[in-house]
Amino acid sequence: MPDPLSFYFDFSSPYSFVAAQKIDALAARHGRTVDWRPFLLGVVFKRCGMPLMVEQPMKGEYSRHDFLRSMRYHGVEGHIPKDFPVATTAAARGFYWLAEADPELAVPYAKAMFLAYFRDGRPIGTRDTVIAIAEEVGADGAAFANALQDPAMKDRTRDAVEEAIARGVFGAPMVFVDGEAFWGLDRLTMVDDWLFRGGW
Amino acid sequence: MPDPLSFYFDFSSPYSFVAAQKIDALAARHGRTVDWRPFLLGVVFKRCGMPLMVEQPMKGEYSRHDFLRSMRYHGVEGHIPKDFPVATTAAARGFYWLAEADPELAVPYAKAMFLAYFRDGRPIGTRDTVIAIAEEVGADGAAFANALQDPAMKDRTRDAVEEAIARGVFGAPMVFVDGEAFWGLDRLTMVDDWLFRGGW
Repeated sequence: MPDPLSFYFDFSSPYSFVAAQKIDALAARHGRTVDWRPFLLGVVFKRCGMPLMVEQPMKGEYSRHDFLRSMRYHGVEGHIPKDFPVATTAAARGFYWLAEADPELAVPYAKAMFLAYFRDGRPIGTRDTVIAIAEEVGADGAAFANALQDPAMKDRTRDAVEEAIARGVFGAPMVFVDGEAFWGLDRLTMVDDWLFRGGW
Repeated sequence: MPDPLSFYFDFSSPYSFVAAQKIDALAARHGRTVDWRPFLLGVVFKRCGMPLMVEQPMKGEYSRHDFLRSMRYHGVEGHIPKDFPVATTAAARGFYWLAEADPELAVPYAKAMFLAYFRDGRPIGTRDTVIAIAEEVGADGAAFANALQDPAMKDRTRDAVEEAIARGVFGAPMVFVDGEAFWGLDRLTMVDDWLFRGGW
């Protein structure tokens, strides 16, 4: 069995949202699975000394237009939530807890989180919403709520962000195929071709 | 006759180099021509308060790897010159002079400039090389050399950069189709689809 693809994303990233609708099927076409790895884009940008894309001069305006255009291009229904971007610390922390406590639920939770935010406009920056989404996919709400406050889970999430940075993740989404990094939604076509041809 | 595409590029940008090999044929498939518009990426990044991509933490390292990989993916022979990136003020100034003085030569000159740099490794940051390339495509070398020093051509080039910024150009390559902006080599596929479907 070949290694899974590593899929790095932030729950508040529109390009990650679109990629999240596509990545499992893309990998499956090549007999691969996907290792989902949420991280915190805000922490990474801060570490790099870069402003968030939507805050960059000119590029910010372009990207807001391009988010919606990219969704239409990829046939994914969605929009930019009123409150955008939001902090995704709680959402990520909940993911890493589920990945240990109830691993079958982690990816469904991640997919539900994206749809809740970009399709339904729910405020996923809030603890209550994150807990509600965890419950909706079948998690134990009380245990999940406790985990969000657990110092061990805070550490686990911080470690995940550090691991992403150490691997060279500077944006989202970012996909690794056997050590080869591909940055951006635009590159899913290239990932597909890389898997098909075994590199080039 | 529909409007030409506007193709904004910097002579020192590897992604622009690859796009430059593709853009005319892409436009021609849809009965369009291309308006080539060199600008100075360094000036734009400075104005935006952003470091050049190759100087950004992590992204710089990724991009150097990705430049070569992208050339292979697109079937374009090239490499990253030893002296990279270079100032392209003289190269751009020469282009805008040719566009007025000998318009048939402007695009062949631009294509020759890219090949000289990314295929042959010639130092296009130097006046002598820029003049030599102009002569190789048939320009009057003495008149061209004078133009590089002409305050009117300095103004013309500065105006071109300001026009690009005013239009929202924040990176290279950038293609406009009937007012719709597409940033990046990765987006040529999307440009093709936009032209085919008339937007979406």
